[in-house]
Amino acid sequence: MGRATDRRGVLRIDLDATATGRTSVRRQDSLAVEEPLEIRVGSAGPGRRRPLAVTMRTPGDDLDLAIGFLLTEGLIRSADDVHTAQLCAGAETPNTYNVVDVVLAPGVPEPATDAARNFYTTSSCGVCGKASIDAVRTRSVFAVGDDPLTVPAAVLTALPDRLRAAQRGFDRTGGLHAAGLFTADGDLVVLREDVGRHNAVDKVVGWAVRERRLPLAGHVLLVSGRASFELAQKAWMAGVPLLAAVSAPSTLAVELAEEAGLTLVGFLRGNTMNVYARPERITT
Amino acid sequence: MGRATDRRGVLRIDLDATATGRTSVRRQDSLAVEEPLEIRVGSAGPGRRRPLAVTMRTPGDDLDLAIGFLLTEGLIRSADDVHTAQLCAGAETPNTYNVVDVVLAPGVPEPATDAARNFYTTSSCGVCGKASIDAVRTRSVFAVGDDPLTVPAAVLTALPDRLRAAQRGFDRTGGLHAAGLFTADGDLVVLREDVGRHNAVDKVVGWAVRERRLPLAGHVLLVSGRASFELAQKAWMAGVPLLAAVSAPSTLAVELAEEAGLTLVGFLRGNTMNVYARPERITT
Repeated sequence: MGRATDRRGVLRIDLDATATGRTSVRRQDSLAVEEPLEIRVGSAGPGRRRPLAVTMRTPGDDLDLAIGFLLTEGLIRSADDVHTAQLCAGAETPNTYNVVDVVLAPGVPEPATDAARNFYTTSSCGVCGKASIDAVRTRSVFAVGDDPLTVPAAVLTALPDRLRAAQRGFDRTGGLHAAGLFTADGDLVVLREDVGRHNAVDKVVGWAVRERRLPLAGHVLLVSGRASFELAQKAWMAGVPLLAAVSAPSTLAVELAEEAGLTLVGFLRGNTMNVYARPERITT
Repeated sequence: MGRATDRRGVLRIDLDATATGRTSVRRQDSLAVEEPLEIRVGSAGPGRRRPLAVTMRTPGDDLDLAIGFLLTEGLIRSADDVHTAQLCAGAETPNTYNVVDVVLAPGVPEPATDAARNFYTTSSCGVCGKASIDAVRTRSVFAVGDDPLTVPAAVLTALPDRLRAAQRGFDRTGGLHAAGLFTADGDLVVLREDVGRHNAVDKVVGWAVRERRLPLAGHVLLVSGRASFELAQKAWMAGVPLLAAVSAPSTLAVELAEEAGLTLVGFLRGNTMNVYARPERITT
């Protein structure tokens, strides 16, 4: 947890307005830590877990990150599907704890041998067959379209400031994305930061899995950046009915939100927002 | 190329300052298009190419994206290693052209069967062995540390405005990252936009591979967002001696830059910048 930020020497250059003068100062700067995390998964017993994915992440809440990743990728459905999840001592010195070893509960299907490929590649047939969205799609068990959540617009517009106020790492580094889970009244439930937006969301979801709060019905998930397809899919997998982003969504995020019945809000800034799907959940 | 942005209906909500009034307007909004692109690679002949990766990208310059990806992942070294690269007709209707089929030149090693796994997973031995950075590291053939490039600080501070001025997609959507390649005099050589920063960089690199401009000695690469490990590595693989970012770098990006001899600039805004590695290339 102490490794989310680290200090490095930096040369700060400041030109004056005419760009003829120059001030250069050596100082220390706080940076967001980025390190690889390998997620291994399989059944109990020696040699039964295989590397599933490596994600570039900010250390901290690594077990939640791994569990959230498995949930949003459709490999587990609840905390009951996880027998144990532990940080492994790495072989590096100093020990960087960059492996999470997940033992699935008995009866939970192990990922196929090449499951890692399934996250990023598709085994479509034919020489030039369909590069389908199926290659990256997962299916949620939660019907977020039926969620009766309503949220006043004024509650939503207050959330970015609350997220930012709770972001300790961003203030120090300017380099950390955040994902925050809020109640329909605008109360912050949990916030996570990471160099990767998808990791921040997986850490929130993993926390919720561990706390047995899924589906996250009646909640709002706010992300600090843009809303990609991947983030909309993760929200759906966790049963969140409203995803809000400070910046722009992509076309595919909107299409997924429409299909899922997920309310998608973008450009949530100041007193304004754009609602791209299921706007009826937002009230005055 | 016409598919980089698309229009969607949106509900614009504007609360007044007291948050008691509300204006809601239905309008059309331009969004950044996000679609999966499958990259297949292998030798000539039917059935010899295998899916290597699927990336979520903004359509356009897809051949450059594929070639740049192969170069920055260390699978090809120049345009000579590519026999043909073509967009395949997909099986979807309408045809979405979301497959690039790359035939390697004779003698170029094909990726191992499970090469896709190598991008994201590691086959480290032992139950809890080393989750090494080796899993995500590639090795550049270019000694960017020896590049004699020098750039006046005032040239660098002018680049973000030039990048932004050339970004057609961002103005319409607010949702596209950009990567721009500049000369040491600050002239824009090529700019690419994408929902993914890494894709924007791969499109620039793929263009340079195809134009036989590698190594990109004496050039500056500017990215619109943060500087991650992945972007620093791509710059190194393409032989770029100076990577500049409008926002923050991560610790691992700084470490890679130090190892490579890459000048790394962050927070390039207004008249100021932070230099995290090899500052002697920046002059007054």
